[in-house]
Amino acid sequence: MYRTNTCGELRKENIGTTVTLAGWVQTVRKFGAITFVDLRDRYGITQLLFGESLNTKLEEQPIGREYVIQVVGTVTERSNKNLHIPTGEIEINVTSFSILNKSAVPPFTIQDDTDGGDDLRMKYRFLDLRRNAVKKNLELRYAVNRSVRNYMHENLFMDIETPFLIKSTPEGARDFVVPSRMNPGQFYALPQSPQTFKQLLMVSGYDRYYQIVKCFRDEDLRADRQPEFTQIDCEMTFVEQEDILNMFEGLVKRVFKDVKNIDYTDRVERMTWEDAMWQYGNDKPDIRYGMQVLNLKSAFRKGGKITATGDLINGAGFGVFDNAETVLAIAVPGCAEYTRKQTDELTEWVKRPQIGMQGLVYIKCNVDGTYKSSVDKFYSEEKLKAIADAAGAVAGDLVLIVAGREERTRKAISDLRLELGKRLGLRKDNEFKLLWVLDFPLFEYAEDENRWVARHHPFTSPKPDHIEVMINNNPAIENADKYLEHPYSNIKANAYDLVLNGNEIGGGSIRIYQRSLQEKMFAALGMSEEEALHKFGFLLGAFEYGAPPHGGIAFGFDRLCSILGGSESIRDFIAFPKNNSGRDVMLDAPSTIDDKQFEELQIKLNFK
Amino acid sequence: MYRTNTCGELRKENIGTTVTLAGWVQTVRKFGAITFVDLRDRYGITQLLFGESLNTKLEEQPIGREYVIQVVGTVTERSNKNLHIPTGEIEINVTSFSILNKSAVPPFTIQDDTDGGDDLRMKYRFLDLRRNAVKKNLELRYAVNRSVRNYMHENLFMDIETPFLIKSTPEGARDFVVPSRMNPGQFYALPQSPQTFKQLLMVSGYDRYYQIVKCFRDEDLRADRQPEFTQIDCEMTFVEQEDILNMFEGLVKRVFKDVKNIDYTDRVERMTWEDAMWQYGNDKPDIRYGMQVLNLKSAFRKGGKITATGDLINGAGFGVFDNAETVLAIAVPGCAEYTRKQTDELTEWVKRPQIGMQGLVYIKCNVDGTYKSSVDKFYSEEKLKAIADAAGAVAGDLVLIVAGREERTRKAISDLRLELGKRLGLRKDNEFKLLWVLDFPLFEYAEDENRWVARHHPFTSPKPDHIEVMINNNPAIENADKYLEHPYSNIKANAYDLVLNGNEIGGGSIRIYQRSLQEKMFAALGMSEEEALHKFGFLLGAFEYGAPPHGGIAFGFDRLCSILGGSESIRDFIAFPKNNSGRDVMLDAPSTIDDKQFEELQIKLNFK
Repeated sequence: MYRTNTCGELRKENIGTTVTLAGWVQTVRKFGAITFVDLRDRYGITQLLFGESLNTKLEEQPIGREYVIQVVGTVTERSNKNLHIPTGEIEINVTSFSILNKSAVPPFTIQDDTDGGDDLRMKYRFLDLRRNAVKKNLELRYAVNRSVRNYMHENLFMDIETPFLIKSTPEGARDFVVPSRMNPGQFYALPQSPQTFKQLLMVSGYDRYYQIVKCFRDEDLRADRQPEFTQIDCEMTFVEQEDILNMFEGLVKRVFKDVKNIDYTDRVERMTWEDAMWQYGNDKPDIRYGMQVLNLKSAFRKGGKITATGDLINGAGFGVFDNAETVLAIAVPGCAEYTRKQTDELTEWVKRPQIGMQGLVYIKCNVDGTYKSSVDKFYSEEKLKAIADAAGAVAGDLVLIVAGREERTRKAISDLRLELGKRLGLRKDNEFKLLWVLDFPLFEYAEDENRWVARHHPFTSPKPDHIEVMINNNPAIENADKYLEHPYSNIKANAYDLVLNGNEIGGGSIRIYQRSLQEKMFAALGMSEEEALHKFGFLLGAFEYGAPPHGGIAFGFDRLCSILGGSESIRDFIAFPKNNSGRDVMLDAPSTIDDKQFEELQIKLNFK
Repeated sequence: MYRTNTCGELRKENIGTTVTLAGWVQTVRKFGAITFVDLRDRYGITQLLFGESLNTKLEEQPIGREYVIQVVGTVTERSNKNLHIPTGEIEINVTSFSILNKSAVPPFTIQDDTDGGDDLRMKYRFLDLRRNAVKKNLELRYAVNRSVRNYMHENLFMDIETPFLIKSTPEGARDFVVPSRMNPGQFYALPQSPQTFKQLLMVSGYDRYYQIVKCFRDEDLRADRQPEFTQIDCEMTFVEQEDILNMFEGLVKRVFKDVKNIDYTDRVERMTWEDAMWQYGNDKPDIRYGMQVLNLKSAFRKGGKITATGDLINGAGFGVFDNAETVLAIAVPGCAEYTRKQTDELTEWVKRPQIGMQGLVYIKCNVDGTYKSSVDKFYSEEKLKAIADAAGAVAGDLVLIVAGREERTRKAISDLRLELGKRLGLRKDNEFKLLWVLDFPLFEYAEDENRWVARHHPFTSPKPDHIEVMINNNPAIENADKYLEHPYSNIKANAYDLVLNGNEIGGGSIRIYQRSLQEKMFAALGMSEEEALHKFGFLLGAFEYGAPPHGGIAFGFDRLCSILGGSESIRDFIAFPKNNSGRDVMLDAPSTIDDKQFEELQIKLNFK
């Protein structure tokens, strides 16, 4: 061992002891004849004092930033104590030292507020990982990992490894594939998730399974997506939705406790998918604050209970509202006194292509009880008041209204609500609010292919009441324009998402476990019988031999860690992440391969 | 929840309680008007009693083997107790039941001694996994996993995930590669191990890392190799070999305790690689028994201390021995009375092509003090006695001698020793004996390429005393016949293997951490400077910024589990293994992919 102690453990009690430390040189400060060095390792920083007697050696063998050194010395009391660090009351009076390895000058400073840009830090990730900010993230990640494993173990879940070289069955995202040298012309796929395997394990009677496991999706990478990512993957047998919700809100609460020391004793709120979309314009609402959406005019619930027909706004001669499919409003607390410049800026914000609105209507609910809007020409103060009241605005609030095509407008109001929540400080990093979103639609309509796709995945079961609807109706969509009137539009799934502060951290479902229903599902998605057998024959087969009711959930581990760490970027919580082109710039991967490899795999390039 | 209790937990104390159970039907036994069903789940088996009142329903809805049923009933005392199972004192007097799912008749019986052949069981792996024998293996695997994680956590190791989509740097085994759609013409590789990443993490200051992680090697599969396998991968900073040995024999001892309840208090034995080869003919000796090899004539240690020149056997006119490069013997305890038939059978055994000897010489050390051999023509009893004494034989033992080319003969005596150890019951399943094998050669000679290859891997450091030899000598081998005289032949590595009962369960090394030495190593392996930079530039770069001394080890997790489970096959300890052609016969993978996938990846097939 190169050391008797780490750089984080020596205290006043150790004064007088002779110790050997090893670590990295954080700083070197010379004061006349003596030199102070901060020595760093994973566990902390300890101050070293090199006295006059070492000056000759220090001149012969100078030490610099990031050098790795080993020192022997005596623990002594510091005259100038630093109470900000745990070792700050002592220092090491060095009697001898050796340089274990030198360091070139790092391309950026190894500090929280480094001067290195993103690209540079990625190329030298091994140096970036030394920074305390990054180290804290990986420590948090490990703490979450440990907490999850303990909870799962205590609840009788078994970690069972599922294979990585599996069969390509693309449905939804693209598979990464791996040519098989031993089976020329054939390919493995890397798993997008262990979905079918965990279901097979339930068929096999393993009862409770989990895994913290890498998954792979070959998708065009939006910001903050990674081609390989980690899931906490879980499955249980003989359970209903309620059992899953209880078990896994328990898991997240345990993580809060273990990792953040937060006692999350509140009941976890629940909301149907329809309510979430209606009230927040979004299926993963951030419920740390209100500012709910007022549907002034909206057909969203055509097939359900509510539609807003526009009574409050129609017929006033304001064409934008009259002609819009959808008009949605939010009441922004305390912003009635926004200046023209501020409302203009918000208008520009919603007109950006990412949001895509034509404009923004506002109503100021002045503290003196008057109302002032950008559409005074069309609406009397009385009418404005009625709208503001309906939006839940009180004196001092600012009502913002957008109008347009339903889907886009809904997204716009949701984005606007989140943006204002951020600007107003309503989305606090240290406040955590969980929400179950329930009763998702089983199907989504895929316009480009004029067919149904599974909203969650093809193994999700419909609500028991909706099974008959699914079985007894032809999935074919004869009139694309009226797909919402197809009975499949209203089938709800036994599916649930767990949302934390406006982010989906987990999602799952109760699964289909009957062969006939699973076959109907594949057919509903437009798969021929032959295709279903080719891709999922093993699962259909398994369902013939006593498949039990089962369900599960998968958590996005990277995302969960980043939210707990108060960061927007999952990349900060991955030791060796890839960039937006799927490249590891440190390794310079992917890269070309040898001719011999092509030959052995019996493939060649075929550029478009 | 479909149940109030599992099938493994009800006891006498629960008598009188109304319970709901769910599980699989193991057996159905009708006795007149009543029916007994054994209901099975992960946790156990509970006997169900269906009384007369349920007969009508049982006729309408008959239940069969592997049906999934739910029953409600009262816990009652069994008249006919079965004390072999924990629930054997009670049964459930069923009041109502429902069939949750039917089952076709399984293609083989779900029992320990199943009637299903290997292929059938692999195709229906989801049923095979139901068998208690397989379930016990996966439970053991999880227990080892849990034990390892606890030990590592307590010793401050952090589980840090390393990437799966990396760069192809084949050196040794073949990489599996993954075409990158976003970077056409380029490929990722799947990691053969996280070796370079864990070293980077040490450079980054993470101090103690571990992972239980999938690794991939595209090799022609010998029996009991898998293209994807699991490693317990570990690395530590500021350590010397001794620290690693202590830490990781501690790990295995902890696993013994947690998983097998064995207190392994013995000191773990240590042996140099040379001694292992000299005394056991093998670098992973099974030291549960003696029967060490006598080197009657052997040049193995040409470069080292010992050679056996053949004094005991030479010049007796026995050409086989006189002309052989190597003559090796073992003394088999208590087998002097082997019949002619038995010795003939052993002779046939060593003549099989897998062993490849020309014949077998024996000396019987009779209990009456006489000696009888198959070479009496050439050797006097006195000479036979001298050989037998040297082999450590005592009265009643049988000395077996093989002769031939050094390498093959050494392997033959080792295999013979293991075979006889097995036959004589000296290799007991429930006895566990650990051994560190140390001081491996740094290089091996690759005849086909006339160059050095790294015996462990290119990141292993030479013994400090041997660094100069490495630096100051040209690696080129001018005379292939005399490669053993090249100074590189005698360079020993800071490498170690942990051997359990004759199986290598782990291996590792102290690493090179100096750029110049690492460059020398790459050069020694015949890599050009350019190639070294292309493949490992990131690591060489990292070594310039304060790389600390570090070392580690990796355990074969599948193998470790199989040995602890007393099985020869790792496949029995993998939930979804592949066959010897690398196929998953359940999934039917690998398989063809769509034209669209070829197009997107810009590759095509190119059959030889």
